[in-house]
Amino acid sequence: MSETTHAGTTISPEQAAVEQELVNTVVASFDKTQDPRLKQLMQALTRHLHNFLREVRLTEEEWNTAIEFLTASGHITDDKRQEFILLSDVLGASMQTIAINNQAYKGATEATVFGPFFTADAPEIALGGDIAGGAAGQPCWVEGTITDTEGRPVPGARLEVWEADEDGFYDVQYTDNRVAGRAHLFADEHGKYSFWGLIPTPYPIPHDGPVGKMLEAAGRSPVRASHLHFMVTAPGLRTLVTHIFVEGDPQIEIGDSVFGVKDSLIKRFEPQPAGTPAPDGRDLGNQTWARTRFDVVLAPAPAQI
Amino acid sequence: MSETTHAGTTISPEQAAVEQELVNTVVASFDKTQDPRLKQLMQALTRHLHNFLREVRLTEEEWNTAIEFLTASGHITDDKRQEFILLSDVLGASMQTIAINNQAYKGATEATVFGPFFTADAPEIALGGDIAGGAAGQPCWVEGTITDTEGRPVPGARLEVWEADEDGFYDVQYTDNRVAGRAHLFADEHGKYSFWGLIPTPYPIPHDGPVGKMLEAAGRSPVRASHLHFMVTAPGLRTLVTHIFVEGDPQIEIGDSVFGVKDSLIKRFEPQPAGTPAPDGRDLGNQTWARTRFDVVLAPAPAQI
Ligand SMILES: [Fe+2]
Ligand SMILES: [Fe+2]
Repeated sequence: MSETTHAGTTISPEQAAVEQELVNTVVASFDKTQDPRLKQLMQALTRHLHNFLREVRLTEEEWNTAIEFLTASGHITDDKRQEFILLSDVLGASMQTIAINNQAYKGATEATVFGPFFTADAPEIALGGDIAGGAAGQPCWVEGTITDTEGRPVPGARLEVWEADEDGFYDVQYTDNRVAGRAHLFADEHGKYSFWGLIPTPYPIPHDGPVGKMLEAAGRSPVRASHLHFMVTAPGLRTLVTHIFVEGDPQIEIGDSVFGVKDSLIKRFEPQPAGTPAPDGRDLGNQTWARTRFDVVLAPAPAQI
Repeated sequence: MSETTHAGTTISPEQAAVEQELVNTVVASFDKTQDPRLKQLMQALTRHLHNFLREVRLTEEEWNTAIEFLTASGHITDDKRQEFILLSDVLGASMQTIAINNQAYKGATEATVFGPFFTADAPEIALGGDIAGGAAGQPCWVEGTITDTEGRPVPGARLEVWEADEDGFYDVQYTDNRVAGRAHLFADEHGKYSFWGLIPTPYPIPHDGPVGKMLEAAGRSPVRASHLHFMVTAPGLRTLVTHIFVEGDPQIEIGDSVFGVKDSLIKRFEPQPAGTPAPDGRDLGNQTWARTRFDVVLAPAPAQI
C-alpha cells in the first residue's frame, strides 16, 4: 500500500506516519503558549510549513540553499534596504495581507502595497504645493476629493504622497540625504486637495540581492508598474494605503513585480501640450505636463464596521 | 452566502475570490521559470504561504512583527551564529527535511538534526583516542561497529564526532578559538571504532536572540536533550548524520527543543565507579566515568536504493 503526495512522489504509509507524527509533536510543543493568538499563529505556521516541505519533498541541499537565501537577505538588509519586505512583496504575501485587512467596503477606495520607501518625516506642503523638491520628472497636477462611504467630504484629511523620480529612484535610494518626491498635505474644508507631483515612471525594485536573483531565475521582471503612493488618514476612518497607476503603462500588462495593480486604481493621466495654462496659473515654461484626478473614499475605521 | 475559514473567520465569497485570484496570479508569475524544480518549489511555497496568511487572517501589525523577526534573525547571524538554522530547528523543519531525505531503510540507523556546531576541520584521532582536547566533563568510552544493511562491516568508515562540554558549550561558542570536544577517526578493518568522549550533558540552544524570545513566549524550553553528534561516511553508502541520546535524561520527557530524539537513538551510558579499570588500560585516576555502545548501520547511497 502506498500514498501519493501532491508532487507525485510515492511514500510508504510508515514514512507518512513518521512525518505526520513529527508535525503533531511540533504543533503540540506550542500548546502552552499563553497568548492564544500567538499559539494559533505558530501552530498554523508549523502545519503549513511542514505541508510545504512534505509536498515538495525538500532536499537537504535545497534546505541549505533556503538557509543561505535567508542569511543573505538578512545581511543585505539595513536601515534603507529591506530585503524581507521585497521577498514578501514578490511572493504576493504583502498584497495578500492587505487584501485580508482591507476588505471591500461599499465604494471605499481599494488599498495596495505600502512598499519600503515611505518615510514618516516628509515635509508639509500647502494645497496646490509641489512635492518634487528638486526630483527630476515631468510635472503632474493631481487633484481630488476625500469623502466617506456616505459621500460626506472629509475636511482636513491628511495625505502622505511619495513617488520615484524619472530615473526610477526614491530620494532615500540616493546617498546624499535629499528629501524629494514626497510631502504631506491636508484636504481643505470641503475635503478637496491638489498638489504638483511628477508623472510616475516605471522602476525596478532593488534587484541586486537575493530576491533579484530569485526573480531572474524565475524569468520575472523586477519592474513595478508606474505609480504614485498615497496614504490617507482621518479620525474615525480606515487608513488607506494605496497607489494610483498610469493608464496605458505597458508594465501593467507585463505584470507588476509586487502584484499591486487593481483596475480601480488605474487612472488617466491627461497629457497637456507645452503652453497649456496650469490650473493654478503656475508658469510651466515650455514643458509638457499632465493632470489626473483621484477621488478617495475612506471606509469607516475597523472598530466601527 | 458566506464561507468559513479554518480559523473560524467568516468572509464573503467576493472576498474569497479576490484572495484566490491573487494566489493564482502569483503562482502564474512563476510559470516561465526555466528550472522545473525551482518552478515547483516557488509555486508550492506561494500556495502554502498564502494558505497560511488566509487561514490565520494575518494582521498588518503581525506582518510587521514577522518582518522585524526575520530582520533581527538576519542581523544576529554571522560566521558562528546561525539564527535561521535555529528557527528551522525549533519549528521542526530541519527534522522534517531529514525525515524526508533519510527514509527508513531496512535496519539502517536513524538520522537526526545536523545542528549548527559542526566544523569541517576537526583533528584526526587514532582509534581509542580522546576527542576532549581539554573540554571539561566526565570521560566516556564510546565503541561500536559500522556495518551495511546486509550486516557486512564497513572498514575505514569515517566518523566525525562532536559534542558540548559539561558547561553546555561547543568549542566554537568560546571566543578563544579552542578546538575541543570534536574529532574525526576511521573504523578499523573490521568496521570497529572506539574513542574517549565526554558524558553528554543538556544545553540550551542559543536563546538570546529572536528565536529564544519566541520560545519564551511559547513557554517552550530551549534545552536540548543531552547528546553526542555523529556523522558517518563511507563510499557507496548513505551518509548518516545523527546523535546518540542518554537514557534517563529528563529532557527527553520535557521535550528536545529541536525534536531530534528518536527512541532508537537513546543509549544506555553505563556509569562506572571511580577505580573501574578502563577498557584500554588508561589511568582515569579517581574519576567516575561511563561507557556506551553505538553500532551503526548505513543504508545504501540514495542512487543505489
Ligand atoms: Fe513605489
Ligand atoms: Fe548538539
